[in-house]
Amino acid sequence: MTRRGYYAAVDWGTSSFRLWIIGEDGSVLAERRSGEGMTTAAKTGFHAVLDSHLSAVDAPPHLPVVICGMAGARQGWKEAGYVDAPAALAAIAGKAIAVPDVDRDIRILPGLAQRDGRCPDVMRGEETQLLGATGMLGRGRYLVCMPGTHSKWVRLCDETVEGFSTFMTGELFEVISRHTILSHAVADAEAIEADDSAFLYAVARAKDSPALATNMIFAVRAGQLLHGVSAAEAKARLSGTLIGLEIAGALASVESVDGICLVGSGRLGALYRAALESQGFALQLVDADEAVRAGLSAAAQTIWPV
Amino acid sequence: MTRRGYYAAVDWGTSSFRLWIIGEDGSVLAERRSGEGMTTAAKTGFHAVLDSHLSAVDAPPHLPVVICGMAGARQGWKEAGYVDAPAALAAIAGKAIAVPDVDRDIRILPGLAQRDGRCPDVMRGEETQLLGATGMLGRGRYLVCMPGTHSKWVRLCDETVEGFSTFMTGELFEVISRHTILSHAVADAEAIEADDSAFLYAVARAKDSPALATNMIFAVRAGQLLHGVSAAEAKARLSGTLIGLEIAGALASVESVDGICLVGSGRLGALYRAALESQGFALQLVDADEAVRAGLSAAAQTIWPV
Repeated sequence: MTRRGYYAAVDWGTSSFRLWIIGEDGSVLAERRSGEGMTTAAKTGFHAVLDSHLSAVDAPPHLPVVICGMAGARQGWKEAGYVDAPAALAAIAGKAIAVPDVDRDIRILPGLAQRDGRCPDVMRGEETQLLGATGMLGRGRYLVCMPGTHSKWVRLCDETVEGFSTFMTGELFEVISRHTILSHAVADAEAIEADDSAFLYAVARAKDSPALATNMIFAVRAGQLLHGVSAAEAKARLSGTLIGLEIAGALASVESVDGICLVGSGRLGALYRAALESQGFALQLVDADEAVRAGLSAAAQTIWPV
Repeated sequence: MTRRGYYAAVDWGTSSFRLWIIGEDGSVLAERRSGEGMTTAAKTGFHAVLDSHLSAVDAPPHLPVVICGMAGARQGWKEAGYVDAPAALAAIAGKAIAVPDVDRDIRILPGLAQRDGRCPDVMRGEETQLLGATGMLGRGRYLVCMPGTHSKWVRLCDETVEGFSTFMTGELFEVISRHTILSHAVADAEAIEADDSAFLYAVARAKDSPALATNMIFAVRAGQLLHGVSAAEAKARLSGTLIGLEIAGALASVESVDGICLVGSGRLGALYRAALESQGFALQLVDADEAVRAGLSAAAQTIWPV
């Protein structure tokens, strides 16, 4: 590195690893991305994975590291616990735990927990995205949608998480596509485009009739048998049905909000944007990658003030 | 066989094979059950599986055989097509197809198809159960619930199927239990009892708030992480959520009926009975095994009148 690194920021999810070297002026000096998420690192060693990426960008030996995500889970590197919701996002950095017995200062940020007996819920990683997103949103009461394997819908007021709900949309899409009678119907289908009419129709139908979701999913298979529905259309219908069901559920329990904020990126972000806008919602958009980096930076500045 | 067989009746599903030898007086002379369903028989040969069971009960060489279920699917023994709904159940026997190039008279009954573009649907095997059930129910307009891997809810008027809806409840329960983040939460749980309070609570909650189904499923995992919910309770909640969602959907699109009929058997039948009765529905109960045998008998008597 030609310029001096201030800290390394790591977003360490279940199946992905991303690292940025941040300079004293806040600029990104280097970036690494890999598939060495928690699942892989739990076998090969978290320390070894982190060191290999730090070495690859010639990071100084004592550069501190701030980490969010599943590295802090019980089955991760070092359990980082949870901050209980309702939670001020600024409190996250203060609850970071230090990884013991390592030769540099490595902190893992906690997740958020909602201990409500009826709707228990947890997040790890998204709280750091939210911390970053609050710097980009104005004050107010927002409903924040964070699509993913386990999509989060967060009731955010100023910089406080009042509560949140996880929908298992992405994981259900995966297991239904791979392991059920629909696997043949969707096999080898290309990625869904955000303006796909079958996708948007399924979103609308599941949002309006969420109780029929598992019937609509079977109808994808029946449509293939009876009407020769293509794999692309089958995949779009399955995805639209699950996302429409999620939207119905996320909005069912919400009173007034100033706006809906979508924290997304890439193809999945585009699908959620199209789904929500087709249902008449005006969105504030925050890039998920920028949000997590901003959140890690905010935490780093609290932990290691200049 | 000491008494003379009239015909063999076979219910050949995806994963199960059941055969009964029926005497001229309608009595069951012999019975066979095995796991050689369509999936197995497609590899080992349908003819060989059938012959081995007929031999095992010393069936006469020319005893005719009537079959319902997945043996008539495209990927089965010989495709038996569909009768289109609305359909008079008595029409099924007339549409049976004969298996060619075999040394006995073997007929496979067709399934039912609903070609409606919005709600395409199919069944194979349940139409024969329905044919049998109509002989046990009085005339009238019934909503018939047939639990299973792909649960069917059928709008039956006298002996005509007006329409039906499949819910992928059983298969979703299986893949969520085996292949998602819930797999650890439900691992090694014992079978759910029908009076399990966690099961009945989840049924009620999903029926009242179907849009929250995939959130409730994630909450099973979060409840385990935060509150140490047991595997037995996790499994009961997952099952109750999916069955409650199904009940909400099945009832959403139905106008008045004279009654709800549950065609079930065993543990799954008991769970559905408890779920529906806990929601205030009075049920007429029909044993699924008796119904399919009665349906096969009715078809046999049409195909081979004495």
